[in-house]
Amino acid sequence: MISHIHHINFIVENLGGAVARYQKNLGLGDFIFDTLTPRAVKTARIKLGDTWLVLVQPTDKTSLPALFLKENGEGFFLMSLGTDDLDAQLKDYEDKQSKPPSISRRRGLENWAIADLPSDDFFGVQVQLTEG
Amino acid sequence: MISHIHHINFIVENLGGAVARYQKNLGLGDFIFDTLTPRAVKTARIKLGDTWLVLVQPTDKTSLPALFLKENGEGFFLMSLGTDDLDAQLKDYEDKQSKPPSISRRRGLENWAIADLPSDDFFGVQVQLTEG
Repeated sequence: MISHIHHINFIVENLGGAVARYQKNLGLGDFIFDTLTPRAVKTARIKLGDTWLVLVQPTDKTSLPALFLKENGEGFFLMSLGTDDLDAQLKDYEDKQSKPPSISRRRGLENWAIADLPSDDFFGVQVQLTEG
Repeated sequence: MISHIHHINFIVENLGGAVARYQKNLGLGDFIFDTLTPRAVKTARIKLGDTWLVLVQPTDKTSLPALFLKENGEGFFLMSLGTDDLDAQLKDYEDKQSKPPSISRRRGLENWAIADLPSDDFFGVQVQLTEG
């Protein structure tokens, strides 16, 4: 079952500048800075209610987030939906598709268990599932 | 103070089809359907944790959401941050800008009090404030 929006990711070119702007304009407190080497990004996040707002800066030119930035510019990257049982949620998803299941899992920040759903499934929105 | 992400809006071309896809792929329950005449849109929303996920279909060709769809295609439209005091949050925002304040307010779904912040202020993300 989907319980909440676990995190929402925005791609930025300059993490420090973006965090400073968010803090100034919205009166937000401290962000947690991190790196996620398998995705070649550095991140800054703050929890708003039960959702992490995550700013993401690519650190190379060939990773998926870097290519997304190059194609689309800064802005919305993905929405991740929280579930307490990723295996069950993913099986339920795959059972409903006409194609055979092919969704891999990966680890995100804080070792979150993550599955990216196919990007053409939600009308222009990259949707992801997260348990953790 | 920003308390949570109040709602996230995605623009779609066909509201009924989008709701059906979200329900099927994610096992989501009933959406609430509505219209917002001043914005020339119809909407469907479901609460995930403390955030409303709102799908938005323009109903004319000249409104701001319709022009956004024409320019960008389906996908992320805006993120609205919840505050318990829109006046104070907006004054705090305006006090920090170099330009004189010029942000108008409007009413959203369920009579939410809304202020759209300038679209170039958050690195490609339309940010909005909502009290309600």
